[in-house]
Amino acid sequence: AAEEAAVRAQADTVRRLKQDKADPDEIAKEVAKLLEMKAQLGEDDGKHKFVLKTPKGTRDYGPKQMAIRERAFNAIISCFKRHGAEVIDTPVFELKETLTGKYGEDSKLIYDLKDQGGELLSLRYDLTVPFARYLAMNKITNIKRYHIAKVYRRDNPAMTRGRYREFYQCDFDIAGQFDPMIPDAECLKIVHEILSDLQLGDFVIKVNDRRILDGMFAVCGVPDSKFRTICSSVDKLDKVPWEEVRSEMVGEKGLSPEAADHIGEYVQLHGGLDLIERLLQDPKLSQNKLAKEGLGDMKLLFEYLTLFGITGKISFDLSLARGLDYYTGVIFEAVLLHQENEHVEEPVSVGSVAGGGRYDGLVGMFDPKGRKVPCVGVSIGIERIFSILEQRLEASEEKIRTTETQVLVASAQKKLLEERLKLISELWDAGIKAEMLYKKNPKLLNQLQYCEDTGIPLVAIVGEQELKDGVVKLRTVATREEVNVRRESLVEEIRIRTSRC
Amino acid sequence: AAEEAAVRAQADTVRRLKQDKADPDEIAKEVAKLLEMKAQLGEDDGKHKFVLKTPKGTRDYGPKQMAIRERAFNAIISCFKRHGAEVIDTPVFELKETLTGKYGEDSKLIYDLKDQGGELLSLRYDLTVPFARYLAMNKITNIKRYHIAKVYRRDNPAMTRGRYREFYQCDFDIAGQFDPMIPDAECLKIVHEILSDLQLGDFVIKVNDRRILDGMFAVCGVPDSKFRTICSSVDKLDKVPWEEVRSEMVGEKGLSPEAADHIGEYVQLHGGLDLIERLLQDPKLSQNKLAKEGLGDMKLLFEYLTLFGITGKISFDLSLARGLDYYTGVIFEAVLLHQENEHVEEPVSVGSVAGGGRYDGLVGMFDPKGRKVPCVGVSIGIERIFSILEQRLEASEEKIRTTETQVLVASAQKKLLEERLKLISELWDAGIKAEMLYKKNPKLLNQLQYCEDTGIPLVAIVGEQELKDGVVKLRTVATREEVNVRRESLVEEIRIRTSRC
Repeated sequence: AAEEAAVRAQADTVRRLKQDKADPDEIAKEVAKLLEMKAQLGEDDGKHKFVLKTPKGTRDYGPKQMAIRERAFNAIISCFKRHGAEVIDTPVFELKETLTGKYGEDSKLIYDLKDQGGELLSLRYDLTVPFARYLAMNKITNIKRYHIAKVYRRDNPAMTRGRYREFYQCDFDIAGQFDPMIPDAECLKIVHEILSDLQLGDFVIKVNDRRILDGMFAVCGVPDSKFRTICSSVDKLDKVPWEEVRSEMVGEKGLSPEAADHIGEYVQLHGGLDLIERLLQDPKLSQNKLAKEGLGDMKLLFEYLTLFGITGKISFDLSLARGLDYYTGVIFEAVLLHQENEHVEEPVSVGSVAGGGRYDGLVGMFDPKGRKVPCVGVSIGIERIFSILEQRLEASEEKIRTTETQVLVASAQKKLLEERLKLISELWDAGIKAEMLYKKNPKLLNQLQYCEDTGIPLVAIVGEQELKDGVVKLRTVATREEVNVRRESLVEEIRIRTSRC
Repeated sequence: AAEEAAVRAQADTVRRLKQDKADPDEIAKEVAKLLEMKAQLGEDDGKHKFVLKTPKGTRDYGPKQMAIRERAFNAIISCFKRHGAEVIDTPVFELKETLTGKYGEDSKLIYDLKDQGGELLSLRYDLTVPFARYLAMNKITNIKRYHIAKVYRRDNPAMTRGRYREFYQCDFDIAGQFDPMIPDAECLKIVHEILSDLQLGDFVIKVNDRRILDGMFAVCGVPDSKFRTICSSVDKLDKVPWEEVRSEMVGEKGLSPEAADHIGEYVQLHGGLDLIERLLQDPKLSQNKLAKEGLGDMKLLFEYLTLFGITGKISFDLSLARGLDYYTGVIFEAVLLHQENEHVEEPVSVGSVAGGGRYDGLVGMFDPKGRKVPCVGVSIGIERIFSILEQRLEASEEKIRTTETQVLVASAQKKLLEERLKLISELWDAGIKAEMLYKKNPKLLNQLQYCEDTGIPLVAIVGEQELKDGVVKLRTVATREEVNVRRESLVEEIRIRTSRC
């Protein structure tokens, strides 16, 4: 009785929230509580009004979206394989402590699991930290691998621009002790290949180096203890103007106006080999050990990228900072310059679609003895790419097929279900992709319409006469042409006709 | 200072637990708390002793496991596509209320997310409930789709037997109002095709119907209110002997001994069409409307399966119950009869590798007006299949390649890094899968050894003389044969040589 009273009280709460048109999230939460209470009382008859939605910041992929997703994945995976990568997978959640202290200010965006007894767990925030954990745990010092999986961030979603709370990352990383900048250059080549292959329009890959940034901060008079937080401010330059970033540095973060202005001069700079050479001569930067190292490596990187023939799309950009804490060397980010949209004339940046960099210290954070494994990698931000491909398909006339069915097994008269079942079974066993309508006596017109709707190119029609003659009528949907094919040749005939189109 | 004291106290707790050799889960939990406290204090220098592991009941997939996984997925996906299925994907978590009241006694195994403000979320427990939610939400009344994704259950893991807390399900479902048993028969055909294709050894697909079970419970004198819980007991018959199940029914669940014994007689029965005919004549069962319906449909199902030519592996088995609450008609489960292991002679059941059934009420539970969409589907339990394939590969001599690299770009002398970079870039741009060692001056022997180790079939060697002559030396690793190929013919030559093997 006490429990029943509690259920009634909870039901009142829900009713009140609904009357007040409260936040749907809030209502959903209280409804869930109510349902659970009822379920425990054995009163859950399953006929409640559910809030029918996916969680905030997530979405379903229907068959059309999946077809687009597969296309993009294929382009990316074949590039990763072209570069000799193996593939791994890790669990969707990690021990909470595995993620602790890796993401700086972004740690608040991590999803935690409820403590239901046992270990404290969190959903993975990226694929890089699980990769480093995997390397340390298995004592792997040398691997080139890709990993395509969903990651989770309790961020403010902006779904029309492809920003979700659950989203795919496609990561390629090279771990091992190698000669400078060779794997780094390959990562940039990979970004270049994938973005070219997907034909997303013009793009630029911005490159910088954490050592150059740190050196720059040092010569500008930023105290050591403020490097990371000032770096976070610089990272916002792709979204907000310098004046705002400057006032954050001076106001919130207590940097001297002189230091900020000094940084302001540097972060305007972007260019190629010429800029690197100029900075190597810069009276201040050239005196800083870190900056000199970074600039030397940047020069080497540009030499390799020249051999790869891709410097046309690369911009050494001193304003690039990247948010994550774990980078130690080269960092980069690819941005699309404008969407493939005829109505928009001037090239506008639509945001980052790939990013990455070198993180030589991360694996060591997991190793009991702190042994380091140098790593460099790239992550393709596939959701924005999906958004663009989806919008483009929407705008085009292209009709995308969501199945690969080669033939529909149909009947011209009634009472032929058994014959259809026998024929379709033969086709399946021969590896032919075949469907039939799940009706005892479907109308021929409905069967032909189904082919039109779903793009099935052929119809195998069984009829009484054909059965007597030992043939099947094979109809080509597009031309309406029909021929009788001997039953024993049907599989071969379907193969020939569908390999053509 | 108060926070620092708290950290010290927590550190003491951890120390004590470690001294006491406490449960590692417990230690991990307290260490996580400690790390978080330290991180908040800004003391987290990342050099703590982490517990280096994946969460309980989960595992990483290394490149070899992934290669096996891909093989199994390919067999399954090509079967689903052969049957004309589209593909969808849903988020890894759902609103908690979406899962509430769907899984009966198993609900306690659901992973909940921590309440961090906003919606209450749970990790998906299977792919069927998200599918039903997807149908209701998008008002889809007719679809044939597959979905391959990970699901989560806080179960007792038994990892050597392929039972994990995070595991893949490969689901194929047909939703829509159709003529009886046609889609149901196709689901069984699919299980038969996949298990045959994967060559896992002999198997049997047990079939039953919830209506037959309910009718049987009714005629045995089980009160209506106990149908579901007695059904759960029957479900345990594949793991524990009848005597134990009987005493659970009588002792824990308060069933009369007579009713239990009556059930005990029925659940021994298994067979084919003959058994169906016999039960249709059974004086008690034939008087029960539900049982009669179920048996009539079972007869129809067997007729269709005869046309598919697969009744040899199908057993109508009255002891099959299936754990999940949502089934309403046909249910089935495939079990392997013995592992492909020469040392084991007698056929022993190694457990279920696929299961499914009809659930005509589930979508209606999500629809505001309760509109039903009849569904039937099958779920392939891929983890056990992986385990078997992994063990088999382990036992065999087969060396599995984890990359697809066609050619290693190598150099015979020093100072040829630039030439290697230029050549490999040409190969990548031509779509050739190529690797090189990330060293400025690798030894030829090391480069050849790398090919041996990773199974790369060809080596393209650049040397000073070859550069002068405009050729590349192409070496076949297996035969050690070397030929000079003109640079402009290299891509074509690699394609020819690698399409052969």
